[in-house]
Amino acid sequence: MTRIYSNEVTLEKVGETVHLQGWVQKRRDLGGLIFIDLRDKNGLIQVVFNPDVSEEALNIADKIRTEYVVDIKGTVKQRDEKQVNKNIASGEIEVYAEEIEILAKAKTPPFQVSDDNINEDTRLKYRYIDLRRPKLQGILKTRSKINKAVRDFLAEEDFMDIETPVLSKSTPEGARDYLVPSRVHPGEFYALPQSPQIYKQLLMLSGMERYYQIVKCFRDEDLRADRQPEFTQIDIEKSFTDQEDIIEMNERLIQYVMKTVKGLDIPAPFPRITYDDAMARYGVDKPDTRFGLELQDLSGFSSTVDFKVFKAAVESGGSVKAIVVEGAAPDYSRKDIDKLEAFVKNYGAKGLAWMKVNEEGLQGPIAKFFDDEKKQELTDTLSLNTDDLVLFVADKDSVVHAALGNLRNKLGKDLGLTDKEQFNFIWVTDWPLFEYDEDLGRYFAAHHPFTSPKDEDIDKLETAPHEVKANAYDIVLNGYELGGGSIRISDAELQERMFRALGFSDEERDSQFGFLIEAFQYGAPPHGGIAYGLDRFVMLLTGSDNIRDVIAFPKTQNASDLMMNAPSDVSGEQLKELHINTEVDNK
Amino acid sequence: MTRIYSNEVTLEKVGETVHLQGWVQKRRDLGGLIFIDLRDKNGLIQVVFNPDVSEEALNIADKIRTEYVVDIKGTVKQRDEKQVNKNIASGEIEVYAEEIEILAKAKTPPFQVSDDNINEDTRLKYRYIDLRRPKLQGILKTRSKINKAVRDFLAEEDFMDIETPVLSKSTPEGARDYLVPSRVHPGEFYALPQSPQIYKQLLMLSGMERYYQIVKCFRDEDLRADRQPEFTQIDIEKSFTDQEDIIEMNERLIQYVMKTVKGLDIPAPFPRITYDDAMARYGVDKPDTRFGLELQDLSGFSSTVDFKVFKAAVESGGSVKAIVVEGAAPDYSRKDIDKLEAFVKNYGAKGLAWMKVNEEGLQGPIAKFFDDEKKQELTDTLSLNTDDLVLFVADKDSVVHAALGNLRNKLGKDLGLTDKEQFNFIWVTDWPLFEYDEDLGRYFAAHHPFTSPKDEDIDKLETAPHEVKANAYDIVLNGYELGGGSIRISDAELQERMFRALGFSDEERDSQFGFLIEAFQYGAPPHGGIAYGLDRFVMLLTGSDNIRDVIAFPKTQNASDLMMNAPSDVSGEQLKELHINTEVDNK
Repeated sequence: MTRIYSNEVTLEKVGETVHLQGWVQKRRDLGGLIFIDLRDKNGLIQVVFNPDVSEEALNIADKIRTEYVVDIKGTVKQRDEKQVNKNIASGEIEVYAEEIEILAKAKTPPFQVSDDNINEDTRLKYRYIDLRRPKLQGILKTRSKINKAVRDFLAEEDFMDIETPVLSKSTPEGARDYLVPSRVHPGEFYALPQSPQIYKQLLMLSGMERYYQIVKCFRDEDLRADRQPEFTQIDIEKSFTDQEDIIEMNERLIQYVMKTVKGLDIPAPFPRITYDDAMARYGVDKPDTRFGLELQDLSGFSSTVDFKVFKAAVESGGSVKAIVVEGAAPDYSRKDIDKLEAFVKNYGAKGLAWMKVNEEGLQGPIAKFFDDEKKQELTDTLSLNTDDLVLFVADKDSVVHAALGNLRNKLGKDLGLTDKEQFNFIWVTDWPLFEYDEDLGRYFAAHHPFTSPKDEDIDKLETAPHEVKANAYDIVLNGYELGGGSIRISDAELQERMFRALGFSDEERDSQFGFLIEAFQYGAPPHGGIAYGLDRFVMLLTGSDNIRDVIAFPKTQNASDLMMNAPSDVSGEQLKELHINTEVDNK
Repeated sequence: MTRIYSNEVTLEKVGETVHLQGWVQKRRDLGGLIFIDLRDKNGLIQVVFNPDVSEEALNIADKIRTEYVVDIKGTVKQRDEKQVNKNIASGEIEVYAEEIEILAKAKTPPFQVSDDNINEDTRLKYRYIDLRRPKLQGILKTRSKINKAVRDFLAEEDFMDIETPVLSKSTPEGARDYLVPSRVHPGEFYALPQSPQIYKQLLMLSGMERYYQIVKCFRDEDLRADRQPEFTQIDIEKSFTDQEDIIEMNERLIQYVMKTVKGLDIPAPFPRITYDDAMARYGVDKPDTRFGLELQDLSGFSSTVDFKVFKAAVESGGSVKAIVVEGAAPDYSRKDIDKLEAFVKNYGAKGLAWMKVNEEGLQGPIAKFFDDEKKQELTDTLSLNTDDLVLFVADKDSVVHAALGNLRNKLGKDLGLTDKEQFNFIWVTDWPLFEYDEDLGRYFAAHHPFTSPKDEDIDKLETAPHEVKANAYDIVLNGYELGGGSIRISDAELQERMFRALGFSDEERDSQFGFLIEAFQYGAPPHGGIAYGLDRFVMLLTGSDNIRDVIAFPKTQNASDLMMNAPSDVSGEQLKELHINTEVDNK
């Protein structure tokens, strides 16, 4: 008899004999009967052992414990109305077991599969049990579906799936590389790629025209909550293209994925915002547009008032911006606002000024600095109404944006404005080509050194690099960077100017990218692309807050695998073959 | 105007204006006209520059050189009958250019894209030009198609694509690991996985039931012609399964891939042969069944003759086997046969005895050792006819098999019996569970330590390990191992016995696989799977003899990337952060 899955046993099967296999999630003894919840990859089903059906099966069932693996044959019966379990697909039926075989016994597991409240280190150590939890199974199913939907769409668009090397070469820009010592070439190392960027551009030089890959990338960085040493990128590159073409195709890709995986119709074209506007209106370069609370610029107003904090900020080249939280005044006590102030201080703000609107007008510690006329001007400018709460930060622009941008996101969450089932995709365009590092006193590539400047800004590469905008675009979903890309430099001469602008000496450039610059001299088509963070995509589509929940076997924040116990010691013989020694401080 | 590809410009488009983009593969000047072969990802098309159509376009065309990237608009015309080029899809038409734009210039490339006869090191150094060659583009297209067909089939079968870690743990069995030093854990190392074997079994313990992945694996071995340090595996695992189920599903998978990629119907079930039979009949464990030339066992016959070489081999426990090459006697001179003898000596044979059948009967240097009766017996046993050539090896079994098995494959090729467009899939089953290493004096797992023994052989695990057969199966295509797998041990106790039989001390076992043995105690379903070598699959389906031709950016035989120049030196600072030193002999 063919085995079927729990979710396939529905009312239509009543009276039939079915064959089930799976794990015993729960066992209950009741009035001479035994009930088990049988779990398979598609869900749960209730199996009943009744001496009137089979005494032998009941006797075997008496021996089974949680997480035993069993093989059951039995008859499907409809449950009494009051026994119906609406939480599971098979909730209207139960199976009366005629035969049961124990395929594998199980020790008492370190935690129950039905328990969602387990310490994460324990979960990671016993990951194979953790992964039995329906929540994680569901996430990995969604991950697999996203992966497949992306491939289906891109194959249909005639993109070729081309694998690029994992054993690659160390490059100096960006994050730290993971290195791999070579046995054959003593003293030399491969590096694990931080992205296939160079390879995919070389594939465009090779005339492949349409490339994609879903590929592991590696970054040896101190891990934040949402980072992993190895992560997965959906990597796409196309020749004979431009920014509009890439954006249009990616909107269709996202529409396809959202329809296939979530059943949702996402309208296109997606909204677009320039980097400068995003910073001005949302304080961040990846705005969450599920809610308002936009930053209001009061710099003009502030330069006309006597309030020193505001005036000084503007006069020293900074700004004053405000967030209006409509109707929130009664809900935010002084203590609540103190907490918000502590929060913005994390982003460098010296304080959080505030006012409430009540029936008498603007109130609060700073209200006294404004005369009635200015109060009215402020009320008009911000379109304030009774019970509104206004939060101000006055500082240099970068601090105002960081403080209010993050405060805005926090308020969005606190006020319940971030519906996880609402998906707001937007494009952020016109990024700066360079970032200036004040500590090192030099410019860096904001994306990477192959990003092309906008045509109209090429003249400023050497003279005003901070003003140069790039043909670069990020796709942002609900406040997170989902992906980013650019149209690349396809002109060898321009690429050389870019390296000079980045402060590379000719020698550094040639030793690191010489072959690439040479490659561009043999006929480089215009090309560009995008890369998505798959882990982030899965997190957002499954409503997960923890990146480790979307990866089958993740590392902890100190890059350990608690289950396998990796990294680990290796033998001296292995190291000798690789021509390396360890150099460990005895602390 | 939308750009179209060369292969889309057919007779139906005559009279229309089309927009083309690509590389100039060739330029010819003829009678005031300029002709170029324009290459894009789908092929070649001829473009004509005629002063009567556009003087301006002709002038620009005059400046273009090989490998320039151009954008062309022009009118489609039918070619004169004698100008038709049947080698290209667009061979019946040509495009008269009205406009041309040079998108990128090109230096003279190090070799012509149309030249198939280039030194491989040069090709690898300039891989981005090498990959412009239609042959390599075609191979990578086929690779992408195989990859997609496998995914489509497995997704349809409800398999989940689950990614497993690249930063994994070093395990002692098998080939050398590539190691990755940890910055966060001084003196400790990750290892790159030789396969996701342990992870996929853990996923079965996790109740995923159906897993697949197309994944990079790593082996730091001295490379043979058909090996690469990183290679790609199609990795599949299933729970609640058995050997028949895995074989049946994989036959459907292969049928689907062959139909989708090659348009071929492969009949199923595929032939099966046991390991012992394969060795006996073909001398190798991966027989090429596209041709006969099977090994004939003459051991019984040989023990009754006076020819010492034959008799002694049998009496000392070895065997005598022969290959009959029908009708080949006239084609093989003594010198030819001497070459075959030199060939078998590579496999340890002391010599290659031979006879020819002519009208007088059996001839050749060893004929004198047989009387007429024995000659007749041999003729009957081998069903010999006039002009047959018979080749004998007498030695211990392993030498006889290696010598004649490889000779058979050589003869198959030499005699033109190996049609690259014929695809003979067969299963080799009933593998030995263990291999004995005479140098080390111990048993090793023939596949890996998780392969299950056949039920009926479990009792022999400790007493007669060499007799134990495994629930293991290889899929062989045209003499190459395409994939292999097994039903795994799912019983913790049996797994422990297996480790003991392999000579692991309890400590070794626990330190290396302790977590795995523990995992098996929490309810392990019966499970098994298979892994295919994708690179090999692509080689066979594209008729490639060189593994580097099926990989976009391969390594050389000494594991170098000639284009990127990897591996390479890294900075002392990087090494310090990783807590390692290099130890390089100054030679």
